Amino acid sequence: MTYRMPAEWTEHQGCLMAWPVRPDLWGNVLTEAQQEYAEVARAIAEFEPVTMVAPPGHGEQAAAICGDQGITVVELPLDDSWFRDSAPIFVVDAEGNRAGVDFRFNAWGRKHSPWDADDRVSALILDRLGVPAIRSEMILEGGAITVDGEGTLITTEQCLLHPNRNPDMTREEVEAELKARLGVTKVVWLPYGGLLDTETDGHVDGVCAFAAPGKVVVQLPADPEHPDYVRMRANRAVLEHSTDAQGRPFEIVDVPQAAFVEVDGKRTEVGYLNYYLANGGVVVPIADHPADEGALAVLAAAYPGRKVVGVRARVVAFGGGGVHCITQQIPAARA
Amino acid sequence: MTYRMPAEWTEHQGCLMAWPVRPDLWGNVLTEAQQEYAEVARAIAEFEPVTMVAPPGHGEQAAAICGDQGITVVELPLDDSWFRDSAPIFVVDAEGNRAGVDFRFNAWGRKHSPWDADDRVSALILDRLGVPAIRSEMILEGGAITVDGEGTLITTEQCLLHPNRNPDMTREEVEAELKARLGVTKVVWLPYGGLLDTETDGHVDGVCAFAAPGKVVVQLPADPEHPDYVRMRANRAVLEHSTDAQGRPFEIVDVPQAAFVEVDGKRTEVGYLNYYLANGGVVVPIADHPADEGALAVLAAAYPGRKVVGVRARVVAFGGGGVHCITQQIPAARA
Repeated sequence: MTYRMPAEWTEHQGCLMAWPVRPDLWGNVLTEAQQEYAEVARAIAEFEPVTMVAPPGHGEQAAAICGDQGITVVELPLDDSWFRDSAPIFVVDAEGNRAGVDFRFNAWGRKHSPWDADDRVSALILDRLGVPAIRSEMILEGGAITVDGEGTLITTEQCLLHPNRNPDMTREEVEAELKARLGVTKVVWLPYGGLLDTETDGHVDGVCAFAAPGKVVVQLPADPEHPDYVRMRANRAVLEHSTDAQGRPFEIVDVPQAAFVEVDGKRTEVGYLNYYLANGGVVVPIADHPADEGALAVLAAAYPGRKVVGVRARVVAFGGGGVHCITQQIPAARA
Repeated sequence: MTYRMPAEWTEHQGCLMAWPVRPDLWGNVLTEAQQEYAEVARAIAEFEPVTMVAPPGHGEQAAAICGDQGITVVELPLDDSWFRDSAPIFVVDAEGNRAGVDFRFNAWGRKHSPWDADDRVSALILDRLGVPAIRSEMILEGGAITVDGEGTLITTEQCLLHPNRNPDMTREEVEAELKARLGVTKVVWLPYGGLLDTETDGHVDGVCAFAAPGKVVVQLPADPEHPDYVRMRANRAVLEHSTDAQGRPFEIVDVPQAAFVEVDGKRTEVGYLNYYLANGGVVVPIADHPADEGALAVLAAAYPGRKVVGVRARVVAFGGGGVHCITQQIPAARA
């Protein structure tokens, strides 16, 4: 049976999220983090059902803060709260049957201990959903890849070839495993993720996302002083001169900025690229910053026919991610 | 005392080369390799004196093959024959006094054992020249850098951040050591060297060279099937959007191709970027290939006032390098 990972814009059964409780990560802003996660869940629930997984003993709190309009809370052991990276990556076969690829997870190169519960949670989720699991021994987070569902996967060398992930695998072996597990036939390697994205070592979902087959959205800072000003232009050059699995060149949509805000005394970059495609919607992290409006307009133009919704995610950014990082789609059974 | 590395086009006292004898590297083509090294030495000797260092017992052979027109042979213990990478990197102070930086050498990430004689040869050369040595504990080959002599150094991440060189140094620490030892104030990081350049892990001297302050020559394959077609365009985007230490943008000269030839049954890429700037000359590796002529014309235009000379270097390429890799300039005392 040959499975392939559907593009994020394909119809979903729903969305998985994980409830944040980790004091060493959130410190003074844990309460605000929970509020923002709940706002993201409510925004997505306008488009599709959300399952919020909370660690044992925290389900009641999660339910109280999230509300019950389209959000179901279940309890499973968790270490952290970034389901893009620790939840299963769903794939489908030609008949629409689903499976979930359970890649290994090591907390982005052993950055936050423990991570064993997050490494095990994919299997528990799949068991609960009644979807068969496909285990991979490669370390991979979902935020490190974006696919078009038609054979193309885009990733970054900065993350996937970082020695803290799979030091014993060559680039060719990493590519072969991506192709085998996710049903892609071409991998486009961008050199860079975000320089300031030290939590993930440069996940692609901070800098580039597929918008449609043959069409990508990229981060392209307009300010020459931005640390990624040159790097993102190198990424763009790769996309300009590459073709996808079907031989098509890429149409490229530029998002010209990210917002910098201060959260609990820390300068924090809120990247607009880290959005989630819900059924009929685009849920975008915003920063209560003058740059929000322009980014939302670019994304509205890039996703015709979808409702674009901004959700304040400054504290999520402080924690190391955005809306995309804290969500994982479950494709519909006959996607 | 503050030293800086002069640009390669600054006046030389002469050129250092090392005589090839290593059977495990050259195999069937050792004799042809020696012929090509000798031809390179004779071409450079038309412009400046050449000192050919041969391993003990090989001096007589080297002298016999090279001839004595401007070429002096001396014997010193050697492992291999790539003085761009194992010889000292010369620096000068404001009064024109010279020193030689003796970086550590580990055979391009422990690829060819032994390498202890090559690691020690810089100290012996400097002692013989009566030039003071500055020892650095960082592993660095001269082929991994190009400088404009006015504060700017260009290198590649592929090589300098490769875990087989200085795995315990961060990017910031590598930059700090380059600045301290070579008197540069800005490091421009290109993502890539040549993909096929597996011997050096992508030295910059295969893909980019300073031609003058504010002016660089880059490899830019015209053939979309070339493995570096996209990668070199990412490099070029970095240069297009960067400025040098003086705040100048870069004028970029493209060399549109390398030549592929077969040497002893191995498909071998002869890159035209790996040339040496002698006093008044540019000594360029060529391949007896139709592409030679175009590359020489581009370089003649890029270096007005210099005589451009092509020297057949197919076997040198088979061994892993070009004219630049097998040479090292000694700046004139009051450069």
